[in-house]
Amino acid sequence: MQNVQAVRRAVTDGQDRFLTELTEWLRIPSISADPECHGDVRRSAEYLAQALRGTGFPTVEVWETGGGPGLPAVFAEWPSDDPDAPTVVVYGHHDVQPVTPVELWEHPPFEPTVVGERLYARGAADDKGQVFFHTLGLRAHLAATGRTSPAVNLKLLVEGEEESGSPNFPALLTEHRDRLRCDAVVVSDTGMWSRETPTTCTGMRGLVEAQLDLRGLSGDVHSGSFGGAIRNPVTELVRILGRLHDDQGRVSIDGFYADVAELTDTERALFAKLPYDENAWLANARSRSPYGEVGFSTLERTWARPTAELNGIWGGHTGAGGKTIVPAEAHAKLSFRLVPHQDPADIQAKVEAWFAANIPAELDWSTAWTGPGVRPCLTPLDHPALGSVTRAMETAFDTEVLYTREGGSGPEADLQDILEAPVVFLGISLPDDGWHAPNEKVEIPLLLKGAEAAAHLWEDLATSMRRGR
Amino acid sequence: MQNVQAVRRAVTDGQDRFLTELTEWLRIPSISADPECHGDVRRSAEYLAQALRGTGFPTVEVWETGGGPGLPAVFAEWPSDDPDAPTVVVYGHHDVQPVTPVELWEHPPFEPTVVGERLYARGAADDKGQVFFHTLGLRAHLAATGRTSPAVNLKLLVEGEEESGSPNFPALLTEHRDRLRCDAVVVSDTGMWSRETPTTCTGMRGLVEAQLDLRGLSGDVHSGSFGGAIRNPVTELVRILGRLHDDQGRVSIDGFYADVAELTDTERALFAKLPYDENAWLANARSRSPYGEVGFSTLERTWARPTAELNGIWGGHTGAGGKTIVPAEAHAKLSFRLVPHQDPADIQAKVEAWFAANIPAELDWSTAWTGPGVRPCLTPLDHPALGSVTRAMETAFDTEVLYTREGGSGPEADLQDILEAPVVFLGISLPDDGWHAPNEKVEIPLLLKGAEAAAHLWEDLATSMRRGR
Repeated sequence: MQNVQAVRRAVTDGQDRFLTELTEWLRIPSISADPECHGDVRRSAEYLAQALRGTGFPTVEVWETGGGPGLPAVFAEWPSDDPDAPTVVVYGHHDVQPVTPVELWEHPPFEPTVVGERLYARGAADDKGQVFFHTLGLRAHLAATGRTSPAVNLKLLVEGEEESGSPNFPALLTEHRDRLRCDAVVVSDTGMWSRETPTTCTGMRGLVEAQLDLRGLSGDVHSGSFGGAIRNPVTELVRILGRLHDDQGRVSIDGFYADVAELTDTERALFAKLPYDENAWLANARSRSPYGEVGFSTLERTWARPTAELNGIWGGHTGAGGKTIVPAEAHAKLSFRLVPHQDPADIQAKVEAWFAANIPAELDWSTAWTGPGVRPCLTPLDHPALGSVTRAMETAFDTEVLYTREGGSGPEADLQDILEAPVVFLGISLPDDGWHAPNEKVEIPLLLKGAEAAAHLWEDLATSMRRGR
Repeated sequence: MQNVQAVRRAVTDGQDRFLTELTEWLRIPSISADPECHGDVRRSAEYLAQALRGTGFPTVEVWETGGGPGLPAVFAEWPSDDPDAPTVVVYGHHDVQPVTPVELWEHPPFEPTVVGERLYARGAADDKGQVFFHTLGLRAHLAATGRTSPAVNLKLLVEGEEESGSPNFPALLTEHRDRLRCDAVVVSDTGMWSRETPTTCTGMRGLVEAQLDLRGLSGDVHSGSFGGAIRNPVTELVRILGRLHDDQGRVSIDGFYADVAELTDTERALFAKLPYDENAWLANARSRSPYGEVGFSTLERTWARPTAELNGIWGGHTGAGGKTIVPAEAHAKLSFRLVPHQDPADIQAKVEAWFAANIPAELDWSTAWTGPGVRPCLTPLDHPALGSVTRAMETAFDTEVLYTREGGSGPEADLQDILEAPVVFLGISLPDDGWHAPNEKVEIPLLLKGAEAAAHLWEDLATSMRRGR
């Protein structure tokens, strides 16, 4: 308990400097999707590098990425004096989402504004605020323990292309794999269930995305002259995609569930422990009622079950009025969320095989996949790093920490797979923080709790993952 | 045979004047769909009116239509001296299709050009040429028989909005129903099977058109956060429309076939008599192989079977790349071709009922119908007017005349229903005449055959449909 008080005092002592520096950083419009802001993304990287040097990191480097937008990442390293200390990589990103429609912002997105306990700015929660609490957390860790170096070998990797889909991230990880070698990855780019219910995330879904193109005729033809006597590609597309799910809400593709890790009773019990409010969830889902695979709860469906989703469809006449044609082509955008232990390449092959078996031979068709896809990731509930995160957060928040997952997909899977290390999540954002939306904010008290949790985490990990144990 | 020679001679004598006047008419760009051409549509009506006066019609009127574009029709009337003569209305139209893409025309569309036996111009076949052969046919009829008035009470109704969907045509027919009273309608706005196989049409399909709109969510949502746990309107749309046909190619809507007049053995035999060439048909259909309702030939499918066609579909993300959303809305354009004795209002009600029974209750949906639809029309094979058309064409072409139908839909059904008269078809256009396409043409020898057939038709109808028989 002495350490708890010491960390809290150190965080309180450091909060002014922390908020001042964070605010300056938030003024930089590091929108990676906007080519006009690419200079600002670079400025943002340099600002962070300088702040990390100021925090005491002996090694701070700005890493260029090849190809794509080429927006730099920041790497920092502070070895522990303890030769048996485990090595940890903290992951976050310093680029931000676009701000359109800017007229919906109550405060200018790049003029950080404090209202009560809230700090409003683009990037306040996603992800500059959550990256930056590590500077305060590390200072508090050193101050509270009297150490001159962290209890773990600490590395930070803060990328600048996350909001643009991290196109060069796998290559960056591969290129610097030796320098990024670690025993665990701590991701600070997620949120908690609520202010009252602190949580940590234990997994994310994977993703593969495709466009399906069907071509039947060499051009539109008159539906009076030919309708009823030739294949209509739009009709065929809806017939195929209409069979994508069965009446139980399950995906019909052969073998789709073959590698799915079924939820254990423990996992289902942990999900059920969360104070799920269906009306609140439906409001966020902009939906009237839940619907999905029979036999699973809403949280299980979004976190632990794979999906086949139609993201878009088009073909034939889509303008005003009628047009009596048999259209020549039909198209759809599909995406599949994956769960452990589904493999993106395997699912792509199964989808292709299902199309091949179901599309009539008279039609030409092709699929275009958006890259190799994203793998699902999952941290085993009994992994020592997860135990450390749980205890660190419980100490900071002074309450029980529950477990969530994320239904989305991100570069976390690359960290897990390329660095061959377990990924744990230390994030303090709230569902109403407005990620990707106007009026993004972060709760300042939660930023400080994040710093406290980080301070405790390094101490706890040094024990739980001690090398040679 | 004396009359045959006399008609042929009269047509030959009149062909120069006929072609000169037709060519002048074809110079007028009477594109009803183009507001900038609406003055030309009126000029076209006035030109035709003057030509009909010159042919001898004692009554010629330009009829205004209400609402819509308000493009005038031409009415002409020439009573027979014979008090027992039947009354016939000839239908055609004097407006034409747009000419885009004009760069594909080998000759300017409104500078009629004769190449060999072909007359190239927009409207040459559809429909000015086929309207105008009636002036030559009537002159030949009078010259060959020595009459001073036609053998039938002859009325012409030539509308100016056909290529714009005849929006005011039913109202025009209703307004002038008394003056249009008749025993038969002769439509000259269709074609024949081929140069070698002259045919007459015995029916057309009806049509109802709708847009179906599905709304599930109040906005697009993130497929990572919510995918798998809410209804996806695009998925629901393809599930519903994917069930629109069964595996036999039949429409699944309850009661859809209840009123369908099944083909008789005689009708099937008549269709089978036509020299159908599948490869040629497929080339026109821009398709690799025929496909449709099991148990019917291609001609039966397009002429005598009803259809449910998807003319267009759209929803969600349709641009480049992926977008991981659950879309808020999904839309489709549908049309249904109808055959005797299906009723457009009844089919609309059955489609609505089927949607109501099949669309999940969580989704809002609506259908917007494009007007009341078009009724199918059919001339009984034993109707005396059809016998007259057959004999008149056989006399002109000196060969057997076979029977076709049209898979398309048009104002002919309004003529049949509002004037309560049978509709027969005297058309001489060929499938390669390029209706609605660049380089529209008509074969001059066939125009003259059309005039001959018309000359014989009035004489034959005066006998076959003589009043009081």
